[in-house]
Amino acid sequence: MRPTLLCLALASLLPLNVVAAPQNIIYMIGDGMGPSYVAAYRYYQHDPAATEVANTVYDDLLTGMASTYPDDDTLVTDSAAGATALATGVKSYNGAIAVNRQHIPIGTMMQLAKRLGKANGIVASSQVNHATPASFLAHNKSRRNMNDIADMYLDYRIEGKPVADLIIGGGTKYFVRQDRNLIDGFTELGYQYTDDYRQLDSLTRIPAIALLTEDALPAVLNTSYDSMLAPLTDKALQLLSKADKGFVLMVEGSQIDWCGHDNDIACAMAEMHDFAKAIEVAKAYVDANPDTLLIVTADHETGGLSLGANGVYQWRTDVIKQVKATGREIAKQLRQLENQQEISKRYTELTGISLDKAQLQMLLTALANEDEKVGRSQILQFISDASLTGWTSGGHTAADVPVMAYGKHAGEFNGFMDNTAIAKKLIQYIQQTK
Amino acid sequence: MRPTLLCLALASLLPLNVVAAPQNIIYMIGDGMGPSYVAAYRYYQHDPAATEVANTVYDDLLTGMASTYPDDDTLVTDSAAGATALATGVKSYNGAIAVNRQHIPIGTMMQLAKRLGKANGIVASSQVNHATPASFLAHNKSRRNMNDIADMYLDYRIEGKPVADLIIGGGTKYFVRQDRNLIDGFTELGYQYTDDYRQLDSLTRIPAIALLTEDALPAVLNTSYDSMLAPLTDKALQLLSKADKGFVLMVEGSQIDWCGHDNDIACAMAEMHDFAKAIEVAKAYVDANPDTLLIVTADHETGGLSLGANGVYQWRTDVIKQVKATGREIAKQLRQLENQQEISKRYTELTGISLDKAQLQMLLTALANEDEKVGRSQILQFISDASLTGWTSGGHTAADVPVMAYGKHAGEFNGFMDNTAIAKKLIQYIQQTK
Repeated sequence: MRPTLLCLALASLLPLNVVAAPQNIIYMIGDGMGPSYVAAYRYYQHDPAATEVANTVYDDLLTGMASTYPDDDTLVTDSAAGATALATGVKSYNGAIAVNRQHIPIGTMMQLAKRLGKANGIVASSQVNHATPASFLAHNKSRRNMNDIADMYLDYRIEGKPVADLIIGGGTKYFVRQDRNLIDGFTELGYQYTDDYRQLDSLTRIPAIALLTEDALPAVLNTSYDSMLAPLTDKALQLLSKADKGFVLMVEGSQIDWCGHDNDIACAMAEMHDFAKAIEVAKAYVDANPDTLLIVTADHETGGLSLGANGVYQWRTDVIKQVKATGREIAKQLRQLENQQEISKRYTELTGISLDKAQLQMLLTALANEDEKVGRSQILQFISDASLTGWTSGGHTAADVPVMAYGKHAGEFNGFMDNTAIAKKLIQYIQQTK
Repeated sequence: MRPTLLCLALASLLPLNVVAAPQNIIYMIGDGMGPSYVAAYRYYQHDPAATEVANTVYDDLLTGMASTYPDDDTLVTDSAAGATALATGVKSYNGAIAVNRQHIPIGTMMQLAKRLGKANGIVASSQVNHATPASFLAHNKSRRNMNDIADMYLDYRIEGKPVADLIIGGGTKYFVRQDRNLIDGFTELGYQYTDDYRQLDSLTRIPAIALLTEDALPAVLNTSYDSMLAPLTDKALQLLSKADKGFVLMVEGSQIDWCGHDNDIACAMAEMHDFAKAIEVAKAYVDANPDTLLIVTADHETGGLSLGANGVYQWRTDVIKQVKATGREIAKQLRQLENQQEISKRYTELTGISLDKAQLQMLLTALANEDEKVGRSQILQFISDASLTGWTSGGHTAADVPVMAYGKHAGEFNGFMDNTAIAKKLIQYIQQTK
């Protein structure tokens, strides 16, 4: 090989940090997706007939881990503080939507993108004004002020325009209210709008907004969809990719966290699958559009999930694969039934688990409790026990979360980092490609 | 810059995989060290007065994560199968010491090193013939056959010599037995020997063996040592570094796992500190001897540890820092006391936790139980509750484990991999530097 050719060959092996920043950023957040969820999904996907456990898309993209502690002494973050860190590079208190302790707004990467003339959008399987997407688009001292946050999506302007060029998810009830119809406001500004999942094709350009359900999207396990998020991600990428100066898209797998709060492992695996399919769409986009960086991470872990529990050295995915609905849905269905025999039969149909006499009695007692949560917890406890799935909490934990990166500058996300470091890098790239 | 200079500059940025394999390998295994242990230790080390949480040595070295499932359908490995995978690159069944399902020996990296004329050694804070070190040096169908394994350390020969050039840890009772004195056998072969931690300096060259306690080394929390493993690691590196053809050293932080089995968080943090100090010694060695690769990983997670529990968004390291002894030691001390008042007072002295009347009664009842484990569990339950530490099991879980790498070829350990892939790479390096 001649020296100059050798030199060119060497140049192709250069680290990416001497290469210009990526024009497009796809930022995917699995809410509550601690490291055990990623391992769990791999084994859940595993075909026991295969000799080796195959990698999932999460495994293929893994580059590091991130800490998630909030700006107080609790060490355990909520989704608002977690998303604030991931959207702004600045830590705040639990409940904060892109504001600091003094309730002063902290600029988000979407606002920066808008200011610099780049397109931006959010896709979520929750209400679009839930804590995670909210922290990218709005500011509020409390995640609970969901009407105020929805208002801000329309009212907070950068050069006369709302921050987001594209909003896809659930939550019409916050946007079409008795006191105010925000959708009218958006359409007056030229946003295309649909509220029908089957009519996504009616969105042909940005700006656009799609609110597909009254509240959150349904839990995917209770639907006939393999993935609801993948087509939404695909649509978002189609629309945003037309932008001249590139784009920033945030996609949230919102309900992994909700399954975790319920300690519902089958629900969690279905949401992890939903999110994985969306990641595969994004990964294919990067392959076709190499001037793009894909980052996947989580805001925190939920539930203290473990694979194996109670001293038994086993985790039984075969049990989990039998479960056909979420604990909430099973509880709803069982409550509508008349007699014990029907309840027992339906429970087995929906979970694959046969209850003995004592267990059936426990279930009936729990279902009779006026607190709906008691029945659901019992339904799910049997599934956790049978599958040897462990949980320590109905809330979050301080576990580090996985960081996955793919495409341009992916190598910058190797190793351990704080969640704010992820946002800081992305903000830097947005600034560099204005 | 002239083309040739530029070319040289580019060459210096080449990935490490075109560089020759590392001459020396330091392989450190934190038994039971799941990802939550690494995060926990970071927060345990954190000074609440500091504005930011500082990285630990684990964080600084993190490069990826590894799966740990054994060669059956349980997904949850024990330490023997885990160590077999890490020592040979081949998965086996739980309990296997470097043998396959048909009980046929699988060659280990230490045996390979010996065969190729490289020095090798093991350091452990357990008995030196416990599952993890055993899987590097011996073969047995069951980890429980500890006398047979000890015998094999002397009897299994490669070119007339025992496999290990250096063995440091606990376990005289397996080596100096009524039926056989293995130490005599080792000294006849020219091994230096000591059984005294304070006489480590008497070891001046390999081959050498140091068995410092009858059984395992003491839990470091019950000693006045900051780290027991760090000086042992330092000694091992001093002795092995004189080898002509380089060395392979395995260092096990053995008792992180045992704390996990007991669900004893203060014990676990002390063992993580012990191991961290040993890693710092190894890291300094790599800095001074760049032809060395340091790998740190774990065989599996133990206990289903979570930081935060029971729905509370907090993990309290202040509680854990007050604990002065392991649950086992506290139980032993409390059992020697005469009356309730003394027990209550001593419990508070040793844990920082004041018990109310009902709690004291629970403790007394538990201590009175003839099963020693009941008293210990109650002692530790109060600490877990007060610190909001979650556990799901007294056994192992299928969590992925952290992978840390430093030095020559560290870049080869980025991202997600199976535990066998770690061993396969190391075995390849050993073969390449014979």
